[in-house]
Amino acid sequence: MVSTARSPVIPAKMQAWVLGNPGALELIEKPVPHPGAAEVLVRVDAIAVCATDLEVIYHGPPALIHGGEPFNKNFTPGHEYMGTVARLGAGVDEFEVGERVAVEVHAGCGRCERCREGMYTACLNYGMNYGDRDKGHRANGFTTDGGFAEYAINHVNTLVRVPGGMSDEEATLIVTAGTAMYGLDVMGGLIAGQALVVTGPGPIGLMGVAVAKALGAQPVILTGTRADQRRLELGRKLGADHVVNVHAEEATAAVRRITEGRGCHYVLECSGAPNAVNEAARMLNRGGRICLAAFPREPALIDVAYLVSNNIYLFGIRGEGRSATRRAAALMQQKRFDASLIHTHTFPLDEVPTAIRYARERVDDAIKVVVKLRH
Amino acid sequence: MVSTARSPVIPAKMQAWVLGNPGALELIEKPVPHPGAAEVLVRVDAIAVCATDLEVIYHGPPALIHGGEPFNKNFTPGHEYMGTVARLGAGVDEFEVGERVAVEVHAGCGRCERCREGMYTACLNYGMNYGDRDKGHRANGFTTDGGFAEYAINHVNTLVRVPGGMSDEEATLIVTAGTAMYGLDVMGGLIAGQALVVTGPGPIGLMGVAVAKALGAQPVILTGTRADQRRLELGRKLGADHVVNVHAEEATAAVRRITEGRGCHYVLECSGAPNAVNEAARMLNRGGRICLAAFPREPALIDVAYLVSNNIYLFGIRGEGRSATRRAAALMQQKRFDASLIHTHTFPLDEVPTAIRYARERVDDAIKVVVKLRH
Amino acid sequence: MVSTARSPVIPAKMQAWVLGNPGALELIEKPVPHPGAAEVLVRVDAIAVCATDLEVIYHGPPALIHGGEPFNKNFTPGHEYMGTVARLGAGVDEFEVGERVAVEVHAGCGRCERCREGMYTACLNYGMNYGDRDKGHRANGFTTDGGFAEYAINHVNTLVRVPGGMSDEEATLIVTAGTAMYGLDVMGGLIAGQALVVTGPGPIGLMGVAVAKALGAQPVILTGTRADQRRLELGRKLGADHVVNVHAEEATAAVRRITEGRGCHYVLECSGAPNAVNEAARMLNRGGRICLAAFPREPALIDVAYLVSNNIYLFGIRGEGRSATRRAAALMQQKRFDASLIHTHTFPLDEVPTAIRYARERVDDAIKVVVKLRH
Amino acid sequence: MVSTARSPVIPAKMQAWVLGNPGALELIEKPVPHPGAAEVLVRVDAIAVCATDLEVIYHGPPALIHGGEPFNKNFTPGHEYMGTVARLGAGVDEFEVGERVAVEVHAGCGRCERCREGMYTACLNYGMNYGDRDKGHRANGFTTDGGFAEYAINHVNTLVRVPGGMSDEEATLIVTAGTAMYGLDVMGGLIAGQALVVTGPGPIGLMGVAVAKALGAQPVILTGTRADQRRLELGRKLGADHVVNVHAEEATAAVRRITEGRGCHYVLECSGAPNAVNEAARMLNRGGRICLAAFPREPALIDVAYLVSNNIYLFGIRGEGRSATRRAAALMQQKRFDASLIHTHTFPLDEVPTAIRYARERVDDAIKVVVKLRH
Repeated sequence: MVSTARSPVIPAKMQAWVLGNPGALELIEKPVPHPGAAEVLVRVDAIAVCATDLEVIYHGPPALIHGGEPFNKNFTPGHEYMGTVARLGAGVDEFEVGERVAVEVHAGCGRCERCREGMYTACLNYGMNYGDRDKGHRANGFTTDGGFAEYAINHVNTLVRVPGGMSDEEATLIVTAGTAMYGLDVMGGLIAGQALVVTGPGPIGLMGVAVAKALGAQPVILTGTRADQRRLELGRKLGADHVVNVHAEEATAAVRRITEGRGCHYVLECSGAPNAVNEAARMLNRGGRICLAAFPREPALIDVAYLVSNNIYLFGIRGEGRSATRRAAALMQQKRFDASLIHTHTFPLDEVPTAIRYARERVDDAIKVVVKLRH
Repeated sequence: MVSTARSPVIPAKMQAWVLGNPGALELIEKPVPHPGAAEVLVRVDAIAVCATDLEVIYHGPPALIHGGEPFNKNFTPGHEYMGTVARLGAGVDEFEVGERVAVEVHAGCGRCERCREGMYTACLNYGMNYGDRDKGHRANGFTTDGGFAEYAINHVNTLVRVPGGMSDEEATLIVTAGTAMYGLDVMGGLIAGQALVVTGPGPIGLMGVAVAKALGAQPVILTGTRADQRRLELGRKLGADHVVNVHAEEATAAVRRITEGRGCHYVLECSGAPNAVNEAARMLNRGGRICLAAFPREPALIDVAYLVSNNIYLFGIRGEGRSATRRAAALMQQKRFDASLIHTHTFPLDEVPTAIRYARERVDDAIKVVVKLRH
Repeated sequence: MVSTARSPVIPAKMQAWVLGNPGALELIEKPVPHPGAAEVLVRVDAIAVCATDLEVIYHGPPALIHGGEPFNKNFTPGHEYMGTVARLGAGVDEFEVGERVAVEVHAGCGRCERCREGMYTACLNYGMNYGDRDKGHRANGFTTDGGFAEYAINHVNTLVRVPGGMSDEEATLIVTAGTAMYGLDVMGGLIAGQALVVTGPGPIGLMGVAVAKALGAQPVILTGTRADQRRLELGRKLGADHVVNVHAEEATAAVRRITEGRGCHYVLECSGAPNAVNEAARMLNRGGRICLAAFPREPALIDVAYLVSNNIYLFGIRGEGRSATRRAAALMQQKRFDASLIHTHTFPLDEVPTAIRYARERVDDAIKVVVKLRH
Repeated sequence: MVSTARSPVIPAKMQAWVLGNPGALELIEKPVPHPGAAEVLVRVDAIAVCATDLEVIYHGPPALIHGGEPFNKNFTPGHEYMGTVARLGAGVDEFEVGERVAVEVHAGCGRCERCREGMYTACLNYGMNYGDRDKGHRANGFTTDGGFAEYAINHVNTLVRVPGGMSDEEATLIVTAGTAMYGLDVMGGLIAGQALVVTGPGPIGLMGVAVAKALGAQPVILTGTRADQRRLELGRKLGADHVVNVHAEEATAAVRRITEGRGCHYVLECSGAPNAVNEAARMLNRGGRICLAAFPREPALIDVAYLVSNNIYLFGIRGEGRSATRRAAALMQQKRFDASLIHTHTFPLDEVPTAIRYARERVDDAIKVVVKLRH
């Protein structure tokens, strides 16, 4: 697993994109950071563009917002990256220099109530990692510098070994699969033989299809719109037993038809559509569960009485907790699904803005756009 | 526990209120029903009026709706009753004739997926208890005849022994306390020392305050409106550490103030107010949980993105599952709180419509209105 | 799914094996039983021999023991059967005549505390299904007549559809796979990417390997003795990443070696060996979990302090709860593993004693011995 | 809560007991340690003697054992202490100097799998807190210096605010109550109205009685031996509905009698007696649960088949996880039980060996012996 041949000559300076005014990224030179205790310096080899990167770039990283004006602070975004362990901080022997690693986003503070109960993505010290208020929380590319750069610091908790034989590009998708798996975990985790709907064929939705099928869900149904036709076809390759284009058939009717009127047990909501929660509720049988994994832009009109009278549970998730990323990597190592199917475009580091444009505007039907670094 | 002196002479006919047109109840004579296998005939001694009774009376019992026009079917509503075991069906030795019992609402079919996993209030055969489609589901006063009558049939699962020394009136509140306790159960159940808000001081909210405090929640905060002043005071007597009149102080601000900025761990939502879910979410710390125990009349605009980015879970409950009613009765037996505080008015059986009017219109500040039968 | 061509002409009499004195089975003629409410008459097409059948045959069915001398009561053993729906009891529309079904063992009473919380295999009315004490509990081949006969009555809860294209012989193994899956469920169910050891390569152990691997466990390690060599090889075909012959390498040392000193997360104990619990505990990392799925003949010396100081949890399971059998059937339908590999021998109905002898004495390296009926 | 008047003049040196040869403690002068990041210096005001202290003193602290000869290493034992915050390490604003605090034992490393899932008492880096292998794990008085001294360092995670008005002596029992509460948590936590047996009336057992009753368990039964008569009486005062002297009545028979043949739902095993697990299993109804909270000296003969055929679960716990200590403190703040009842003797710091002798030999019927410091 360790390419011992590679001598880790680490330069003093590195190239890194930083956030200027809203929406403006600039490629500058920064010092290569030094890993502290329990931290690792990762040489970034590849990084994918995620929809939430756009949020960060246009509206500012959330934690910095609390601390004042978030822009023009030399902040480097990007969180779906992988690379090579370049240097170990004090007390780190879980990894060796030269190992290939993918990364989770969140390292909780380890000292708040939520971290103490294992909910580290709901850390109560979210964003508290600077100066006097340093509680040790880190969210790569959100509250601490991320991966649109040649090197990045990572807490040891956020590292996941990349299985041998997996390409750099595919490895950037481990955290996406991990997020989808976490969504299944919070709904109870026992999904073999249960009917599951994924609404919205974005990257998390598609990985949700893949992981759910790998774990034996049956049937797996994926819904999308006309514009999603290519993605729906990919969903089928990744394990969906049925795909529903909601312009051709109303989604809840399709689910009722496919499940012979029984409804499904679980909905993984990845669309953020205005009526998504109501539709999800009506896809479910009584006592069913919804995982909310998308961030709708606007408040939505929701029929709460329907949720109550049908004993429906909803689980909001931000990211990838419960070490699901490591467990998802294991499924990928076992070749349970081919995550690389959703990787559509590749750009070099100096074309990050183009990569982001492709992702945002779905140029050339882009799904997952990866930036590949050369060292 | 058994008053052996009482000889159970059971008449052939009984008085019973039945539902005519929407909103119209009529007192008629009906045959006293006979308990089948696993059933018990209960002589009704007292029955409380619940808000959902009004729903049933004005809009029809939900299961009958599926089976056609729900009105003028000789249906007897009412579900918060208690009484005396009068006759045992085949195979029943869990209870004896003469024992005092309160009742839960739901007996699941015992054969669907949800019943098989213990979620009997989410029975997939809800309302299936007639003719060829008899799957054995019963919901007293919703899908099968209820307690506004001299006698009622109950599945053995729905019976709870009334502790010695408890009045008939208080015993009608066991199921109310059980529903509140179930709400705490589904949110995880470990609430000692955790901050909990109850929104809405109706009977379930007030019992939620009492049960949560009995289980050690700290602080327990109850919110209500100006019209709820008397109820808020009762809430304090039942265990609320703080009560908040939302006309005097905005509810989320009050919760932040009381919890010194940390927010609470749990919200038991009993108001059904239009903005209740959004406010509940903003009362919580990250990773907090909401139990939805009220039925809002209209769809509500909900900020789903806030739920997602704060890892909030919501649990809709219909009624009182997981044998919570029996566990709540144990707390009442131990005198952990005085449920009878919320009982405000009493009427005889022939004044059921008046009792319902008092409850619906809050005549004379009515909270819990009980109908007491004389035999 | 329904072979409509087959006209279900049901005879009045059938052939059935019944238990005489301990260890003695006799083939007699019995009336074909009639299904009651919520019951189905199944025409038995195939039935496998299980180790617990031997217990029943030599020591008597457990429930009858409570009711007196268990032998010579016309009792028919056998619980791992499958067949064809021949007749429906009242209120059954979940299945149709002609459908192929496998069966779970346990139908809980549906009215005790455990059934009400979903633990129907721990039904508190176990064995209560006769006469005045009929609470409706059934355990096929244990407390009610089983499948070593041409027809058998089954509660609708215990039926599982056989996927199209699956042989009768393989279908008898659905309940075995379901028991193994239930063992994984009770340990938490999130086993993808986790290290799991199965101790004992009997049928449940081998199905445990198959299901665990299907769900993504990594590595899956199977241990056995020298006599188990053929079974260990089968284990490898069913998904074990490593097999350990404990005569060649001490089991806990092997697990430490394979897991690079970290130990495993879960042990599914299927050997019943005297030191099995102590060894399982020492295979685990701290906080690990053991499922006890075998019945040791003798009390075992157990180092309880080790369990305590390492936060180890143990879960005893009797059979197959939580609808795991249906979920396991879904994995088999998806061809995640080939259960038929463990089927080694077949006999006709009139050779049941020979089939049992092959299973008990491992004649000709027998693993799963199936009795196939001709109608 | 903060006594601002107290000026925290912290000396350079302090008195501390250290472990010499097995069983030998010596009072020496040590430098007062300095709190690191996320740590707090606590001025010890009182410390109770626990049975596991004796283990440590006679057999060596467990982690040091791994690192070589554990004795004569200047190690200070003692973990049931409370005191006053004297100095804050970097980044600590959760507490203020002058606040009174009790302490939990375990601060997990925050970076292993178990810590990441919230099981910090099962930290996989147990004892790894020195030199190159410093992973940050701390177990006060086990793997890091404890409280038989004037000052002690504590990770911020292990601190619990002492409620106003609580004596120092009672505050030393918060962690004992927390351990008992954690035992109830791991068994599921929903114990109101459930039958619970505590076996063994030591301090954890007595606090188990108190917490279980505070949470509404019913009945609560405590078992002990003839020598425990005083403790059984205390158990009654702390909330036991029934106490059983096993010399007068066999324990399982007593439980069956008290529960009218139904058995109990939970057993909290605090005796470490040779037959404790078998007896606990036979006290339970099917599907019941046992928490193992005592460390038996010898392996015990256990009837594993009984555990399996009755679906019994066992949970080994080491200490007090899931923030149960903070939740137990809340119950004590609410005066749900009087923990000080079990405090029987008090000694000054220079009499620690006498205090330990009283505890070990039960001199003068000692239960909880407290060392009270004067500053």
